[in-house]
Amino acid sequence: MSWPGVIERYRSFLPVTPGTPVISLGEGNTPLIPARRAGERAGGIRIFFKYEGMNPTGSFKDRGMTLAVTKALEAGAQAIVCASTGNTAASAAAFGARSGIGCAVILPKDSIALGKLVQALLYGADVVALEGSFDDAFRIMRRLVEGGRYISVNSINPYRIEGQKTAAFEVCEQLGTFAAGRDEAPVVPAVPDYLAIPVGNGGNITAYWKGFREYRDSGFVSSLPAMLGFQAAGSAPLVHGGVIAHPQTVATAIKIGDPAYRLGALDAAADSGGLIDVVSDEEILSAYRFLAAEEGIFAEPASAASIAGVFKLAQDGYFRVGETVVCVLTGHGLKDPDQAFRQSTLGDPVAAEYEAVEAFLTARREAGSGTGAGAVTASATATTATKT
Amino acid sequence: MSWPGVIERYRSFLPVTPGTPVISLGEGNTPLIPARRAGERAGGIRIFFKYEGMNPTGSFKDRGMTLAVTKALEAGAQAIVCASTGNTAASAAAFGARSGIGCAVILPKDSIALGKLVQALLYGADVVALEGSFDDAFRIMRRLVEGGRYISVNSINPYRIEGQKTAAFEVCEQLGTFAAGRDEAPVVPAVPDYLAIPVGNGGNITAYWKGFREYRDSGFVSSLPAMLGFQAAGSAPLVHGGVIAHPQTVATAIKIGDPAYRLGALDAAADSGGLIDVVSDEEILSAYRFLAAEEGIFAEPASAASIAGVFKLAQDGYFRVGETVVCVLTGHGLKDPDQAFRQSTLGDPVAAEYEAVEAFLTARREAGSGTGAGAVTASATATTATKT
Repeated sequence: MSWPGVIERYRSFLPVTPGTPVISLGEGNTPLIPARRAGERAGGIRIFFKYEGMNPTGSFKDRGMTLAVTKALEAGAQAIVCASTGNTAASAAAFGARSGIGCAVILPKDSIALGKLVQALLYGADVVALEGSFDDAFRIMRRLVEGGRYISVNSINPYRIEGQKTAAFEVCEQLGTFAAGRDEAPVVPAVPDYLAIPVGNGGNITAYWKGFREYRDSGFVSSLPAMLGFQAAGSAPLVHGGVIAHPQTVATAIKIGDPAYRLGALDAAADSGGLIDVVSDEEILSAYRFLAAEEGIFAEPASAASIAGVFKLAQDGYFRVGETVVCVLTGHGLKDPDQAFRQSTLGDPVAAEYEAVEAFLTARREAGSGTGAGAVTASATATTATKT
Repeated sequence: MSWPGVIERYRSFLPVTPGTPVISLGEGNTPLIPARRAGERAGGIRIFFKYEGMNPTGSFKDRGMTLAVTKALEAGAQAIVCASTGNTAASAAAFGARSGIGCAVILPKDSIALGKLVQALLYGADVVALEGSFDDAFRIMRRLVEGGRYISVNSINPYRIEGQKTAAFEVCEQLGTFAAGRDEAPVVPAVPDYLAIPVGNGGNITAYWKGFREYRDSGFVSSLPAMLGFQAAGSAPLVHGGVIAHPQTVATAIKIGDPAYRLGALDAAADSGGLIDVVSDEEILSAYRFLAAEEGIFAEPASAASIAGVFKLAQDGYFRVGETVVCVLTGHGLKDPDQAFRQSTLGDPVAAEYEAVEAFLTARREAGSGTGAGAVTASATATTATKT
């Protein structure tokens, strides 16, 4: 009944021993939510959302961080360090606090979403607001590690990938539950036809692909999904080749010009018969609003790249009716409240009188944009929510 | 393996039939996290945190909202409405979007935390920013319901309490896992000696108490916990009696002057042999920082009232060594990023050079406030994090 965290749950797949001091915050076990409307919009496929925003710090990074910090503690580290656009920093700071060892995080000061920054600060990490890019932060982090005081918990730390791969196991086990119906047991794990995922540093798609292969090699399932990775159009070094010196996108969590897991990501797509493609910021923001208003799921903008990419491929006839696609939603929308504000409009204050409130709501309803009208209309071409 | 949400999981305890159209976002199944340092600080008791921030919209409200919206849909409602200080609004908007029926939320405009407001907006609800108090919002909501168009999903909706009581079942089942050790099955549920919980409207303590009693009456456990409710000192009508016309506290989620579940809350405390007490804003904020920096758990300020209250009682010798206390953390810290900012300090930007970063971190370390020094020092008397 009680979920023990990903290390305890998937111990046999991970490099731990009975003596390893496991640092967990109950990460993993995030829900696989069946789409209400997205499958229909994508031409009749079956879509599920793996809602990784429901990890303790609000992103998938916790899966890898539990193992990275556990191994750092086991190795007797004095402190951990990471360079980050935000989610890694929040996760490192949380597990750092939990473990009792120190944590330093280096954040490019212009690429940080509000929620992530306050997390790192409140968890008590030493936060460096760097006047530079993610790649600058990464370079400096490497030099700090060479100094001997710090163990890196960036994605170059191999334990991060090991922990993150557990999401693939969960996807298969949860999909099996849906295939079998709730009351049948034991459940036989099932594999989706496609796994759609946002791609920034390339680590997560690498981890999922490793997880699916290990799960198959262990005999739990007999096939593999095609891996569909999506980069933001202004930050797509894996699609365009080379390094993007100044990546640009609203999806800050995947705003990375020189991915550490370049080869892992490209291999995952190629070996699985999938692809890596781009989606525009407009497509990302449209999907972001769609997720909230039509599915009831608030994810951060980068997360929406997965479903935006599926919508784009569906328009081109990529899928066959009835195929199953799992879209990974990597982080919670509360990570980036400023973006949510920019994508919506709060009306003027209303007087504390029944008549005033009733008139306000009637006006909204008659404008066709609110109660009873399916809430915000999200379309591929809309650029702002029509809520005024 | 796959968690089906609280209605499917606890169907036999809830007013649903096989034909009820269940609206779920994978709510419930939140982790019970053993304290790392809090038990020692409280004089040697065993503390667990029920981290309700790990619900889909980031608060415990989702447990009740899944059932309230499910039943509204079953009843053929055109739309739902609620008055809220924020968490209820976010949850209603999410499940409203998920169900496809409309949702109106009335928020007192000066009592809303940023994260909660953006949630309601992005989920597509009609948001009324009211120039008035929560009690004004509540009064107007009632009149809207009388008009026939709306079903209220405020806590006066009895299904909210029914859904929320499922948290008590989970606490017993999860605590049983810890008592038994991970590898033993089947697990025998266990009851904590105390359940500590923030109290605003009084609905949640009422729901937990109902849940514990029903679970015992069904024979799963044979005892009950003592219920410890904590109100903010400036918003404590259950302690001081009467109505507080202008409640004041940083803990916006429990800033309520006229609780709807006054009797339920008082009965829970009295009948269980517990109490309802107050904690100051200073105690709440100290506990809030402690949770993040020492336990690795980021909860909203109101959540910290539970552990703040336990620390206060422990100082007075209330507990015996070895007793078990479950502290409910009602919402995620990302709900209120502004408060997190006010409780921490971001240093000046640092140049993108190794030497500058290394010097910055060394200065932090020598100030004794960061890496390697146990991060932020939280004490009962500190009023700001010592991070500059």
